[in-house]
Amino acid sequence: MVKLYDDERLDYLLADESMKIIQSPSSFAFSLDAVLLSHFAHIPIKRGSILDLCTGNAVVPLLLSRRTQAKITGVEIQERIFSMAERSIEVNELEDQISVLLGDLKEMQPVLGHSTFDVVTCNPPYFRSPKSTEHNDNDYLTIARHEVYCTLEDVVKACKLHVRPGGKVAMVHRPGRLVDIIDLFRKYKLEPKRIQFVYPKRGKEANMLLFEGIRDGKPDIKILPPLYIYNDDGTYTEEARSIIYG
Amino acid sequence: MVKLYDDERLDYLLADESMKIIQSPSSFAFSLDAVLLSHFAHIPIKRGSILDLCTGNAVVPLLLSRRTQAKITGVEIQERIFSMAERSIEVNELEDQISVLLGDLKEMQPVLGHSTFDVVTCNPPYFRSPKSTEHNDNDYLTIARHEVYCTLEDVVKACKLHVRPGGKVAMVHRPGRLVDIIDLFRKYKLEPKRIQFVYPKRGKEANMLLFEGIRDGKPDIKILPPLYIYNDDGTYTEEARSIIYG
Repeated sequence: MVKLYDDERLDYLLADESMKIIQSPSSFAFSLDAVLLSHFAHIPIKRGSILDLCTGNAVVPLLLSRRTQAKITGVEIQERIFSMAERSIEVNELEDQISVLLGDLKEMQPVLGHSTFDVVTCNPPYFRSPKSTEHNDNDYLTIARHEVYCTLEDVVKACKLHVRPGGKVAMVHRPGRLVDIIDLFRKYKLEPKRIQFVYPKRGKEANMLLFEGIRDGKPDIKILPPLYIYNDDGTYTEEARSIIYG
Repeated sequence: MVKLYDDERLDYLLADESMKIIQSPSSFAFSLDAVLLSHFAHIPIKRGSILDLCTGNAVVPLLLSRRTQAKITGVEIQERIFSMAERSIEVNELEDQISVLLGDLKEMQPVLGHSTFDVVTCNPPYFRSPKSTEHNDNDYLTIARHEVYCTLEDVVKACKLHVRPGGKVAMVHRPGRLVDIIDLFRKYKLEPKRIQFVYPKRGKEANMLLFEGIRDGKPDIKILPPLYIYNDDGTYTEEARSIIYG
C-alpha cells in the first residue's frame, strides 16, 4: 500500500479508473491542461525517449505511458511534489518506464546530457513571478503556477538543450503568452510547427494554447482546428470527453 | 457612365447590391480575405483617418466607408489596378471620403508623412516572391499575390511608419506566416493584440489569419473565437453570411 502524507489523496488519473495518481489540494493537483498536453504531443510509440519538465506529480508521464513504450523522464524541483510523483509511478507499477528526477530544469545537463531526447513536454508555470507579498501563503502552489524558479525563457532554453535535432517540444500555456512563446522558440531554434487553441466554449476567446516546435525545423506552421471544452449547457463536448475519458 | 477597359466588369461589391466595384479577371478581383479584413479591423466611426496599403481596386476602403466617416486613403502600385480603384470610388460617389494614390508603399513618406493615420489596414501579397519563370504569364496577378514589389517586412515597416502611436494596424494573411508576422510586428513596435483564425469548415486547419497590432501597445494578446466560413454542406455559416451580406 502506498504511503500518503498530510492532505494527500490517491485519485483516479482519468475517468476510466485504470491509473491512479497522488494529489494534494495544498501542494499539487493536475489540471485539464496536463491532460490536453499529453493528448496533443506527438510522441514515438515503440521506442525512444521523452523528457517532461515541470513534471509535478508525473501526470504527463503517466498519461503518455498509456500510448508509448518509450522511456519517460520527469524533472521536478519541489521535493514534496517529487515524492508524490515517485509514489504515483510506484502505485501504477511503471518504474521500468518512468523515472523522475528531483532537480532544477536549468541545471540538468550534468545528469541528462544534451540533445538526447526525442520529445520534450512541459506544462510550465503560467504566471509571471508574483511580488513576494503574493506568494507567501502557499509556496507549493505558487512555485507550480508562477515563474518563481524558472522563467518561460529558462523553460524554452532547457527544452532546446535536451531535445535532439529534429526532435519535438510540446508545451501548454496561456494564449496571452503566444508572442513570447513564438519569440523564444525561434530564439532557441525550435521552429513553431503546430498550434491548437483551446476555447472554453463556442463564442469565447481561447484560454489555453497547445504549442509544438521542432528543433532546427523548417518554417511551416499549422493552426489546428479549435478545441472546445464545454457545450453551452456546461457538459463536455464530445471531443473533450474523448480526450478526458480516453 | 463609368468607363470599363479590356475585360473589366462592374460588379456588385456585396450581396446587398448597395455598392459597385470594378474588377477584372486578368488583373484584379477582390476575395473574401478583403471582406473579412474590413469586418475585423477596429476603426474610428465619426472622424479620423485610415490608410489602406496594397489597396487593389479599393475594395477595403469601399467596404470600410460603410461604417465610418473617417477619411480613407488607399495606396496601389500597379497603374492599371489603381485606375480601377479610382473609377470604383467614382462610381460609388465616394470621392470626398476615399482617395487613392498610385505609388510604392516603401516610398510614401514624402506624400503621407509619418505617424499620421489612426488605422492602417493591409491585405498584402501572400506568397514569397516566385522564381521569374513562374510570374511571366500574368504580371498583374503575380504582383498582387506575390512578394514581387514588397516583402512582408516592407509592408509591416510601412504600416509602422504611417500609423500614429497608439494607432492600430490590421492585416489579413495566411496562418503559415504567423511566426513571421509576430516577429515583424514586434520588431517594428506594433504589439500584437488580437488574432482571429479563419477555418474553411469545422475540423479543418485554419487557412486565413486576421491580425491586429497597436503601435507601442502593451503586450496582451487575445485569440478571438474562430470564424468558420462554410457549413459541412458547403453553404455559408450564419456568421460568414452576416459578414458577407452585411
